[in-house]
Amino acid sequence: MFEKFRPLGDRVLVRRTQEQERTLGGLYIPDSAKEKPQMGKVVRAGEGERISATGAIVPLPVKEGDTIYFSKYAGTELSSDFLVVRKDEILGVLE
Amino acid sequence: MFEKFRPLGDRVLVRRTQEQERTLGGLYIPDSAKEKPQMGKVVRAGEGERISATGAIVPLPVKEGDTIYFSKYAGTELSSDFLVVRKDEILGVLE
Amino acid sequence: MFEKFRPLGDRVLVRRTQEQERTLGGLYIPDSAKEKPQMGKVVRAGEGERISATGAIVPLPVKEGDTIYFSKYAGTELSSDFLVVRKDEILGVLE
Amino acid sequence: MFEKFRPLGDRVLVRRTQEQERTLGGLYIPDSAKEKPQMGKVVRAGEGERISATGAIVPLPVKEGDTIYFSKYAGTELSSDFLVVRKDEILGVLE
Amino acid sequence: MFEKFRPLGDRVLVRRTQEQERTLGGLYIPDSAKEKPQMGKVVRAGEGERISATGAIVPLPVKEGDTIYFSKYAGTELSSDFLVVRKDEILGVLE
Amino acid sequence: MFEKFRPLGDRVLVRRTQEQERTLGGLYIPDSAKEKPQMGKVVRAGEGERISATGAIVPLPVKEGDTIYFSKYAGTELSSDFLVVRKDEILGVLE
Amino acid sequence: MFEKFRPLGDRVLVRRTQEQERTLGGLYIPDSAKEKPQMGKVVRAGEGERISATGAIVPLPVKEGDTIYFSKYAGTELSSDFLVVRKDEILGVLE
Repeated sequence: MFEKFRPLGDRVLVRRTQEQERTLGGLYIPDSAKEKPQMGKVVRAGEGERISATGAIVPLPVKEGDTIYFSKYAGTELSSDFLVVRKDEILGVLE
Repeated sequence: MFEKFRPLGDRVLVRRTQEQERTLGGLYIPDSAKEKPQMGKVVRAGEGERISATGAIVPLPVKEGDTIYFSKYAGTELSSDFLVVRKDEILGVLE
Repeated sequence: MFEKFRPLGDRVLVRRTQEQERTLGGLYIPDSAKEKPQMGKVVRAGEGERISATGAIVPLPVKEGDTIYFSKYAGTELSSDFLVVRKDEILGVLE
Repeated sequence: MFEKFRPLGDRVLVRRTQEQERTLGGLYIPDSAKEKPQMGKVVRAGEGERISATGAIVPLPVKEGDTIYFSKYAGTELSSDFLVVRKDEILGVLE
Repeated sequence: MFEKFRPLGDRVLVRRTQEQERTLGGLYIPDSAKEKPQMGKVVRAGEGERISATGAIVPLPVKEGDTIYFSKYAGTELSSDFLVVRKDEILGVLE
Repeated sequence: MFEKFRPLGDRVLVRRTQEQERTLGGLYIPDSAKEKPQMGKVVRAGEGERISATGAIVPLPVKEGDTIYFSKYAGTELSSDFLVVRKDEILGVLE
Repeated sequence: MFEKFRPLGDRVLVRRTQEQERTLGGLYIPDSAKEKPQMGKVVRAGEGERISATGAIVPLPVKEGDTIYFSKYAGTELSSDFLVVRKDEILGVLE
């Protein structure tokens, strides 16, 4: 639905991974983890992060199609399925 | 109405997108998104952002006519239709 | 009244624009804008902003005679008509 | 009384301007200004401000004898007449 | 379980050390230490920390297999056994 | 008593000036000054302040034997007479 | 007990100095000092502090065997005797 949405700078557009999909991915996160992190798929990545001292743009360490983990309260919701997450809120990538 | 208003630095002058226009844009944002982001059209862009280390000005990644998303509490209102938003408050652009 | 007042650094001395003048300026700001920004005329501008990394001074993007908008709680009052506003509190200029 | 006091860095030693002197200066500040700024005369200026990136010292934009305005809560009191004010708390100079 | 998880930037993926394992390691931490730090083994390390002024990446001072100490409230839980910890939250390494 | 104490970095070891000594110094600070600053003598100065951008060390602007003023809540007490004060907490020096 | 513990970066591993040892050191700190600083011996020092602008590592100004003072609430406890303290929390060294 958000194909035409281009995230800015160090942001990525993410589609949340639904509950049952999480087990398929082999990384089932039990509810016991208090602040259970969120999982999702990168739909589109911004152009990158600007280095404040030089002005240069550094590409993001994640790309379209990556499955990522991000902290529970991260991101700004566009809809129940889609949200915008900043690079520094991404914990890691599922290879 | 604000054609003569020139936003400064990393700011952009934005005309809010009205509710029904949002569906036309194909990106209908259901109310379910808790902190529903705002949508609007860039009427005019400031000269750009200054890199604190070098003093150089970097042009903004959005331009006149772009439809942008920005977080719910972003910007300073000039009127019910017009507001001034800073570059870092812009989530993304609708291509 | 404050002609002899020279604002320092990135500050500008501003005379508030009175209510009726706002309509003449063509940019009538209805009260509906919750945090209605303020309008005023630049009486005098400071020497400019220092770039912390190099120490260089960058002239301000506004000059004597400009009509500017600044956020509602911006500035330090010198009197009911005059106040001192910093560059980063200025939203834009009326051309 | 504080002639032997040498303020450090970006600080200045200031003698407050008494109420009646303010009118002589031609810049009478009516009480109506809510957070009425303070006025005073620079008795002595520190050696200047250090640029964090280079370590260089930049002389202060005010000098001995200048009449300055500073925000209401600025400075550290040495006595009811004398206080120490930092460069960034100075609004402007009366020429 | 989290072998396929690649932590980003200055983060490391850590498996908590269980209570009895702590004594084997010779570094038994009595409960008396008020905010008893946590212990764990680095399962995988991110690519490193970016130097904000130059954009260069500096490898992390810990590697796979290291036993590390980190403050009690550090990290983001992935599960009761696994969590993601940032470089600056690591107190030290058990050689 | 603290001769063997070497303060680190931008810190100085200070012996408080007792009340009657303050008058001898000619700079009697009446109690009227609300947040009466403190006075003391520099017993020993740290090696200096590190410039974050270059790593260079800049010597402190005060030296052994100087009488200094520092804000009321400045410093860390070593005893009722001795305390450790950081450079940025020093208001000025009595020449 | 913590010989195998290598503190990271700008941290040092410290063994607290017990009460009676403080008098032997000649620097008896009376209880009158409100926020009585702590004393301890450096067991091991981290590799040093990274200069954010250049990425270079600067060795710590304290070494194994030094007796140091650090503020009352500094450090992270490993046990009742051992704790990890950061460079900036160290007030000074007893020569």
